[in-house]
Amino acid sequence: MKFNDVLENVTIYEAGKPIELVVREYGVNPKDIIKLASNENPYGTSPKVTAKIQELAKNMFIYPDDSMYELKEALANKFDVKSTNVIIGSGSDQILEFCVHAKCDKNSKILMAKTTFAMYEIYGRQTGSQIIKTEDDEHNLEQFSKLYKEHGADVIFLCLPNNPLGECLDKDEVYKFLEEVNKDTLIVIDGAYQEYAAFKDEKKRIVPKDLITKFPNAIYLGTFSKAYALGGMRVGYGIGNEEIIKTLYKLRAPFNITTLTLAAAIEALKDEEFVNSCIAKNFEEMKRYEEYIKNKGFEYIPSYTNFITIKFADKYVSKEVAQKLLEVGVIVRDLTGYGQNAIRITIGTNEQNTKVFDQLDNVLEKLK
Amino acid sequence: MKFNDVLENVTIYEAGKPIELVVREYGVNPKDIIKLASNENPYGTSPKVTAKIQELAKNMFIYPDDSMYELKEALANKFDVKSTNVIIGSGSDQILEFCVHAKCDKNSKILMAKTTFAMYEIYGRQTGSQIIKTEDDEHNLEQFSKLYKEHGADVIFLCLPNNPLGECLDKDEVYKFLEEVNKDTLIVIDGAYQEYAAFKDEKKRIVPKDLITKFPNAIYLGTFSKAYALGGMRVGYGIGNEEIIKTLYKLRAPFNITTLTLAAAIEALKDEEFVNSCIAKNFEEMKRYEEYIKNKGFEYIPSYTNFITIKFADKYVSKEVAQKLLEVGVIVRDLTGYGQNAIRITIGTNEQNTKVFDQLDNVLEKLK
Repeated sequence: MKFNDVLENVTIYEAGKPIELVVREYGVNPKDIIKLASNENPYGTSPKVTAKIQELAKNMFIYPDDSMYELKEALANKFDVKSTNVIIGSGSDQILEFCVHAKCDKNSKILMAKTTFAMYEIYGRQTGSQIIKTEDDEHNLEQFSKLYKEHGADVIFLCLPNNPLGECLDKDEVYKFLEEVNKDTLIVIDGAYQEYAAFKDEKKRIVPKDLITKFPNAIYLGTFSKAYALGGMRVGYGIGNEEIIKTLYKLRAPFNITTLTLAAAIEALKDEEFVNSCIAKNFEEMKRYEEYIKNKGFEYIPSYTNFITIKFADKYVSKEVAQKLLEVGVIVRDLTGYGQNAIRITIGTNEQNTKVFDQLDNVLEKLK
Repeated sequence: MKFNDVLENVTIYEAGKPIELVVREYGVNPKDIIKLASNENPYGTSPKVTAKIQELAKNMFIYPDDSMYELKEALANKFDVKSTNVIIGSGSDQILEFCVHAKCDKNSKILMAKTTFAMYEIYGRQTGSQIIKTEDDEHNLEQFSKLYKEHGADVIFLCLPNNPLGECLDKDEVYKFLEEVNKDTLIVIDGAYQEYAAFKDEKKRIVPKDLITKFPNAIYLGTFSKAYALGGMRVGYGIGNEEIIKTLYKLRAPFNITTLTLAAAIEALKDEEFVNSCIAKNFEEMKRYEEYIKNKGFEYIPSYTNFITIKFADKYVSKEVAQKLLEVGVIVRDLTGYGQNAIRITIGTNEQNTKVFDQLDNVLEKLK
């Protein structure tokens, strides 16, 4: 059967390996598996949120409130915008999809960093757009600026901080670049890890209201998957001017998030204390990784997120390291597919990290 | 900002009104609200499934197994196909979306019944396709055949049984029509309510394996939202030949269903007894509606689903009836938007239906 031509160039995103697979393939006891491949919050979901969902589990037969009134109000409140400035997605991922599909077709151009979140390119290819990438792996605004002047772009993606590398641009330099951008270019600021970056360094903080006021063609994306510890529940949001939000709504299918997801997100917003304590612990534990990596003589990218990227240069092959770790139940993300001889490890709990260092010691010894 | 032209013709699906809205707008006590607008299973989710989700609620921070191994195996088993014949969506709705977006663009044609599930047309318009509808509201295969010969079609939608009207074609007549269809036309058999139809009349049963073997260009869609009582969890499936499934996967975003959804669906498949008892009760209760409607001198469409459509002819205005019911906490679906002076009511529990008849008596008296 003949399908749309553009699909021929679409690749499929490779998700982090799930615990179930490691159990199935390597016979590791589920209790011994340490999953640090998908940047989940290792401290688990807030107990208050869990309790709420246990209470509401009986409502699974009921469709969610498709207006998402309460969640939109809560987010509008948190970010000091109107609820008409907010759209909810099945992860901020889905809002990326809406942005690309609303704006792009076969004649479009999408500008992004060379090594950044894979879905930008995948959604772009679904529309047949031309993907333009910087030469540098990390975000380099001079290169963004040069490429933009040369080619223009219908959509620009900035991942602040950047997944899977961890670096983060300062707000001021981002704003300076955005001033060069034509008002008909959609600017997508992916803030999936913003809570971490803003905690570590105030200069990295992007305030959505400020952003969309200064740049009416920008949209800010946030998620409940990381700091809010609801990765499994698939919920994120976009904050933008009404015209943009209204258009994106045309691409949203009804009931795009679940009844329990809606309740979990509303509850999670009430427990910011939990979120902040997780972020504080994250950066405490990150220091241990930095030290470990230095001691081994590897390099890392200073990270403004809940993960760290270890570069092996010519000392090891990242794919082998990741595979050996997998076999003993430590799931990390090999970045070979991103053109990097590196692995990305989510910063786990104190106990998990200690085990990771031990297992990594063993694996590196074996692969020497 | 300029967006894709095709979006100009996209309308937004109007979902059934949620309980929260009725509480907010009419001050009705949530306990007194009877929601029979969205064809949810009024008997609630299976207690076994609820217990499982309460147990797993603590895992909300973990992304789902994106391979969906266990659920696909369970469905493959149930339908005697391979797991490579199965794709999972956020509701079967999402698979409708994949089908249209994989197959259609501005030059495409989509053939459907005049009055059928609204999302077929909405997804179609997102791609700029031409929508071709039969003259009759209910599925009329002679008209399908005539229109297909005249215009051709890239996608044909058959809703068996049909939402929002409730009628259902016999399998044999469907197959006879499908034999006329070109192998490059994608045939989508929407079986969201098939469990109900097959229970009521064996002649309506579509067996997915049989369908896709005879018609390699057909895909069967099923859902957990209705008989399986998981409408709020957003999960459905498509069963088709590998070539089709593989292509649709290119449009699926990673993690398109939640961790708890995956677990709930797997658990729900283990409790078919619950499903069957719900369906049996549904048709027992439907008799009461048929009698009520006849007594009032209205007409109804014989229904093979868990809802019934009452036609008011020139006796009442359906919009007014629905609104008056809403104000007293009975949520039903007005079909004015579908060009019908009718309301669609989900068959509730015995107790709910008794209350509906009472409230409907009052409302009809007032509107006389």
